[in-house]
Amino acid sequence: MSKFIVVEGLEGAGKTTAQELIKAILTKQNIEFVSTREPGGTPLAEKMRDIVKSETDEILTPEAELLLMYASRIQLIENVIKPALDSGKWVLGDRHDMSSLAYQGGGRQLDQNLIMPIRNAVLKGFEPDLTILMDLDPKIGLARAAARGSLDRIEREQIEFFERTRAVYLSLADQNPKVVVIDASKDIDNVQTQITDKLTAWLTINL
Amino acid sequence: MSKFIVVEGLEGAGKTTAQELIKAILTKQNIEFVSTREPGGTPLAEKMRDIVKSETDEILTPEAELLLMYASRIQLIENVIKPALDSGKWVLGDRHDMSSLAYQGGGRQLDQNLIMPIRNAVLKGFEPDLTILMDLDPKIGLARAAARGSLDRIEREQIEFFERTRAVYLSLADQNPKVVVIDASKDIDNVQTQITDKLTAWLTINL
Ligand SMILES: Nc1ncnc2c1ncn2[C@@H]1O[C@H](COP(=O)(O)OP(=O)(O)OP(=O)(O)O)[C@@H](O)[C@H]1O
Ligand SMILES: Nc1ncnc2c1ncn2[C@@H]1O[C@H](COP(=O)(O)OP(=O)(O)OP(=O)(O)O)[C@@H](O)[C@H]1O
Ligand SMILES: [Mg+2]
Ligand SMILES: [Mg+2]
Repeated sequence: MSKFIVVEGLEGAGKTTAQELIKAILTKQNIEFVSTREPGGTPLAEKMRDIVKSETDEILTPEAELLLMYASRIQLIENVIKPALDSGKWVLGDRHDMSSLAYQGGGRQLDQNLIMPIRNAVLKGFEPDLTILMDLDPKIGLARAAARGSLDRIEREQIEFFERTRAVYLSLADQNPKVVVIDASKDIDNVQTQITDKLTAWLTINL
Repeated sequence: MSKFIVVEGLEGAGKTTAQELIKAILTKQNIEFVSTREPGGTPLAEKMRDIVKSETDEILTPEAELLLMYASRIQLIENVIKPALDSGKWVLGDRHDMSSLAYQGGGRQLDQNLIMPIRNAVLKGFEPDLTILMDLDPKIGLARAAARGSLDRIEREQIEFFERTRAVYLSLADQNPKVVVIDASKDIDNVQTQITDKLTAWLTINL
């Protein structure tokens, strides 16, 4: 049966790098897959992404940011992820719901009484089969991201914002057996070995 | 003290026509005011409005529509409505929260368990001082709107959609003493007399 695999983590943690490796592993197994990214991934959801990323004098309130993230997510789930899974393809996601719980709940410290009803109504129990969390000290991740190019609106947040986000990521991973944690502070070869080992073991059980 | 007055009602019910009259009445009283419209009304909120109004092959899910409406509303409240009221100006709104309750709750039949937590978190008790509800049989309103030009994505909904929306509008008005209902089926002179009489009486009490 087709599966939904998500890569999560802070900016510069190595999500996109990990995706390339995972794509190669899936391809070698002759698994057909679709890649997605969030926020965005459909024409309407990409317009929402533009709003979230846009650099304007107008401050985007934390509540509006949350609502846009979930509006984007529901468009992607209904129009891309579910249709792909239904057609027998796998889906490989660059970020998904765990990002909202970590960034909006942890980083922005939005109330769970706001997040949870939205989340439950949007997801209706839908969740990834496997999440690969690239865990990294945000100082290192931001330095990597900065070395790559200029930082966007979210990437320019205070370090405490990302430390709170990381803490929620780790606590969610701790509670959820479908999340595997990668020590992303190691060099690329080491990180790739960790991912290959864990994904190969998971595929052995789930294929 | 400055006040927030909103005009509500179905498409073609005469909201914009009513606004012009209300503006003239406020101006005659030397009241300074700011006009708003929803969805939209700030640069970011107008981008959200574009998404809601956009004509694409991709279906905008009812849940995403709801989230966008509230994301737009919070941007408008925080960046336009509250600052105007704080500076002593009045605010005259073309649609506000009652539209979401009526269209998303009534028309789209979204669950109150989704709408209410979002609404409460976004509004935090903030509400108009006076709402003027232009009540009209949707068949008449849509005919008026169609005579004016081509219909947009929402205006092309089935008549039952608007009948459900109207029913919620009326039931909310019934429960809320801050809403006055105008019979918008009458000719323009009659409608203008109704609005002038009710608004003048309200101003007498509230000025
Ligand atoms: N283990 C590693 N050690 C050092 N550098 C790395 C490592 N993994 C990735 N990088 C480099 O760090 C930068 C960020 O990596 P990548 O783009 O994969 O992160 P990301 O999580 O996708 O970032 P973003 O959140 O911005 O999309 C890239 O320049 C990448 O080559
Ligand atoms: N009482 C009335 N009788 C007949 N026609 C009217 C009346 N009031 C307004 N109209 C006309 O109906 C059309 C719609 O009116 P208006 O634009 O004020 O409605 P609206 O509620 O703002 O519509 P929309 O929801 O599309 O913004 C206009 O052409 C207007 O001139
Ligand atoms: Mg990336
Ligand atoms: Mg109008």
